[in-house]
Amino acid sequence: MAKTRDVDDLPKNPANYTSLTPLWFLERAATVHPTRTSVVHGSLKYTWQQTYLRCRRFASALSNRSVGFGSTVAVIAPNVPALYEAHFGVPMAGAVVNCVNIRLNSQTVAFLLGHSKSEVVMVDQESFTLVEESLQIWAANEMNFKPPLLVVIGDKSCDPKSLTYALGRGAIEYEKFLESGDPEFAWKPPEDEWQSIALGYTSGTTASPKGVVLSHRGAYLMSLSNPIIWGMNEGAIYLWTLPMFHCNGWCFTWTLAAVCGTSICLRQVTAKAVFSAIANAGVTHFCAAPVVLNTIVNASKEETILPLPRLVHVMTAGAAPPPSVLFAMSEKGFRVTHTYGLSETYGPCTVCAWKPEWDSLPKINQARLNARQGVRYVGLEGLDVLDTKTMKPVPADGKTMGEIVMRGNVVMKGYLKNPKANEEAFANGWFHSGDLGVKNPDGYIEIKDRSKDIIISGGENISSLEVENVLYVHPAIYEVSVVARPDERWGESPCAFVALKPEMDKSDKQQLIDDIMKFSRSKMPAYWVPKSVVFGPLPKTATGKIQKHVLRAKAKEMGPIKTSKL
Amino acid sequence: MAKTRDVDDLPKNPANYTSLTPLWFLERAATVHPTRTSVVHGSLKYTWQQTYLRCRRFASALSNRSVGFGSTVAVIAPNVPALYEAHFGVPMAGAVVNCVNIRLNSQTVAFLLGHSKSEVVMVDQESFTLVEESLQIWAANEMNFKPPLLVVIGDKSCDPKSLTYALGRGAIEYEKFLESGDPEFAWKPPEDEWQSIALGYTSGTTASPKGVVLSHRGAYLMSLSNPIIWGMNEGAIYLWTLPMFHCNGWCFTWTLAAVCGTSICLRQVTAKAVFSAIANAGVTHFCAAPVVLNTIVNASKEETILPLPRLVHVMTAGAAPPPSVLFAMSEKGFRVTHTYGLSETYGPCTVCAWKPEWDSLPKINQARLNARQGVRYVGLEGLDVLDTKTMKPVPADGKTMGEIVMRGNVVMKGYLKNPKANEEAFANGWFHSGDLGVKNPDGYIEIKDRSKDIIISGGENISSLEVENVLYVHPAIYEVSVVARPDERWGESPCAFVALKPEMDKSDKQQLIDDIMKFSRSKMPAYWVPKSVVFGPLPKTATGKIQKHVLRAKAKEMGPIKTSKL
Repeated sequence: MAKTRDVDDLPKNPANYTSLTPLWFLERAATVHPTRTSVVHGSLKYTWQQTYLRCRRFASALSNRSVGFGSTVAVIAPNVPALYEAHFGVPMAGAVVNCVNIRLNSQTVAFLLGHSKSEVVMVDQESFTLVEESLQIWAANEMNFKPPLLVVIGDKSCDPKSLTYALGRGAIEYEKFLESGDPEFAWKPPEDEWQSIALGYTSGTTASPKGVVLSHRGAYLMSLSNPIIWGMNEGAIYLWTLPMFHCNGWCFTWTLAAVCGTSICLRQVTAKAVFSAIANAGVTHFCAAPVVLNTIVNASKEETILPLPRLVHVMTAGAAPPPSVLFAMSEKGFRVTHTYGLSETYGPCTVCAWKPEWDSLPKINQARLNARQGVRYVGLEGLDVLDTKTMKPVPADGKTMGEIVMRGNVVMKGYLKNPKANEEAFANGWFHSGDLGVKNPDGYIEIKDRSKDIIISGGENISSLEVENVLYVHPAIYEVSVVARPDERWGESPCAFVALKPEMDKSDKQQLIDDIMKFSRSKMPAYWVPKSVVFGPLPKTATGKIQKHVLRAKAKEMGPIKTSKL
Repeated sequence: MAKTRDVDDLPKNPANYTSLTPLWFLERAATVHPTRTSVVHGSLKYTWQQTYLRCRRFASALSNRSVGFGSTVAVIAPNVPALYEAHFGVPMAGAVVNCVNIRLNSQTVAFLLGHSKSEVVMVDQESFTLVEESLQIWAANEMNFKPPLLVVIGDKSCDPKSLTYALGRGAIEYEKFLESGDPEFAWKPPEDEWQSIALGYTSGTTASPKGVVLSHRGAYLMSLSNPIIWGMNEGAIYLWTLPMFHCNGWCFTWTLAAVCGTSICLRQVTAKAVFSAIANAGVTHFCAAPVVLNTIVNASKEETILPLPRLVHVMTAGAAPPPSVLFAMSEKGFRVTHTYGLSETYGPCTVCAWKPEWDSLPKINQARLNARQGVRYVGLEGLDVLDTKTMKPVPADGKTMGEIVMRGNVVMKGYLKNPKANEEAFANGWFHSGDLGVKNPDGYIEIKDRSKDIIISGGENISSLEVENVLYVHPAIYEVSVVARPDERWGESPCAFVALKPEMDKSDKQQLIDDIMKFSRSKMPAYWVPKSVVFGPLPKTATGKIQKHVLRAKAKEMGPIKTSKL
């Protein structure tokens, strides 16, 4: 049948098409709620109108220095207003914001700044010497080194010495820098919404950090997905426990502007600070890795303020939360939404969507169901678990393991200057997460492990995560991480690294090991039971992830378990 | 400074880019909540899994008949499941859905079907003869007329005779049609998200209907904007008081899939049906034109079920609601979100965003603030009020009138085969709404009138809307519409058409007129006071809008007000 296709013959024009970018949300927040508080940091408060003007000054100040399309601006800071503003000010100038983890060492920061060719480095006063060292390393490694513009972020809550030091070393103070910009700067959306908005380096649990690049389009779509998934309404009050430098705070930096909400900044996350912000700042929502939840549920009575003055929504992701921790959170009155994702997916891309039929279940069963990674986010168009050999979906039987893969508009543009990694990551039209999991009969996916975290003992796969989930129930254990230790007879066997609860510190350690072993034998298959238990604090990344590669190295150093020991 | 732009050198690939289309939401709802109720119509209930399979059958059945990209499928039906399914089934086949108002006459329907070249006409059994007549008119007017495929939607709640009649005239029954399709049909998103998804003709308060064309991209973005603006959470239960054929139900057809909610269908909107659905079907949200709100607040005690069993959210748009109606709704416990928009903006594009500081005001003041059209939707990127001559923004003084203009991704692609109308509508990079309004000092826009609804009396502009808002407070008045009547001395003067409350029907009419005049003189400037008051029911469009052009014609027929009468 011949089609005239008249109905498709209507071109785009300036009135009906514009690039998607989260920058629109800021302009809208300033128009709709100009006097509402946008950002709070201690006694410092800004309104949306002020934040908008500050961000335009920021963009103008960058533009005046020829920083724009093609440039990268690095920011190294904890959760302070300047870092929030960088999420708007930098892309308003057309540049890309590169948020750097403040807990990295100078060697790594030097690599990041050099790899990203950052033309401007904004740094919190307390991280100034870190950056100074990094720049020396960078300069030493690069022939054509051109020093970046240094902007130091002063913070009244810090010792003024480090600010004085930075200013003495030629850095411009952030507020001065803003003053050089025009608050009426006429920013424009990017010509192409595929243009990059942010760059963030993976936390490096693997060898060398990879630069994850995000687009304006993806950031816009993720910003709208977050509140829909979470039921986060207009005017939400959000506590920044999650570092903004961790995948742009899972895009909540931009989501907060979309919902015209309020950001409560936190330089340091402690249980006391979290409860105090809930009690005093009206907090309704926060995001946190499971380690932070663990801190909250294990907080002392002095640090804890209960009952909660209102329902507080918590989104957790970053690692699989043990059901026991989810249970303890819900007992305290928090509503935990469990999500899962990666920097490569703009933050969370699956959600363990709560089913009304779970309401009537015992809380511990609810926690078990809620500990699964779930179903796809509204902004993600594809999610599956593929057999790693055949690349076909595994059956939804809750047993057959495969690799979790995604595709859609909230998948990164790619890794910066890394064609090999991109080829692997995007093979066969899917983004490959590297996480292993199963699909349950109800369609909810469940991570069993990072591919490299699986322990293979006597040819059997053991999910270190499942062993950990059982151990977390033991009353003496505060945190636990299980890795493979070489084993003469079985190839590998589980080795548990355990951080004890403070009150257990003085217990008889051998008796505790015996007790944990006995507990394990009663709760899991014999071949899962850790053959070694090691006490001590667990090494963590800057984002609170336990560094399994460090523990694996330790377990290797311990040498193989001898057959005679069995 | 030379930029390497490495950070932008990452092309799109199948894993990180796909067209935006609301069709993804249906696939997701079926995956995430397969057993949750999607659509309810009387005793008929579908789950999301079923709706997804039915829509794929639908798309397959169309494809089998070569209906796809470039084709248009017309649907003429009240709010029944088949119309809901058409919003997904038709675009899944690549075609465009054209929802036709069931209350149009055969002449207009003939024009619409011919103008849109609809290849398939789906029709509710009760509208079959309307379509039959329309096809005869169409055939008579077109040389190369090729009869469209006729699909009749049977409804058990209707008299079976009309269905039997339709089947006798060669129509296929919808359920039979579905059976011919494959439930595993492999639909694909459009290659280009700018592809058209829907066509809808303006309700024709002006001369000849114009075909508003919407894109997949715009429909996707609007679908996500709706729940964010309204605080509509996952699993909402939505009552279809708003016709789906009115601008695709303001895109709520697709929003319901995005939030995995439940659609409660209604063939006919009465106060009793609304209260009953709230009491029995768990309704949390509905959209309605102000006339429907008026019906609700004026319902008899027998029809009303109060108190509401839960907070019920109401979104109103389509005409400016009188503050007195908003007040009465809030008194009954409804939370009314006032929005404003047009078919050309995918439905609502501004919202009277509630300010927390209004909470402490008297309810009647709240209603007055809430009666304003407000600020832009999260999906709209530009909104302003422009001086009609200079095309410059008017000052935010709440007084200076101008035309309300919009731009952004939720503005239509254009009018079908109407370059002249498109040129006017999109002049100067804005979409021109044709509505006149002011900008208040708080940035909220407020409609004063459609440009043609302004009454010009002695050179002074009178907003017919403002006169109506005052008259609505009069205890005898159920509905009122004010238009210009020719006036020998003043050029024009206000003429009020009034529908009285039922209990007033037997009152002395002259006394009532005197009373309304007296009331008016005490509440408004003298030149606003209607010089004529006419009683009787008000003529309305199929979507419940009062047809001012009919009343204007009537006022004209009445002849000019003589100077001697003054």
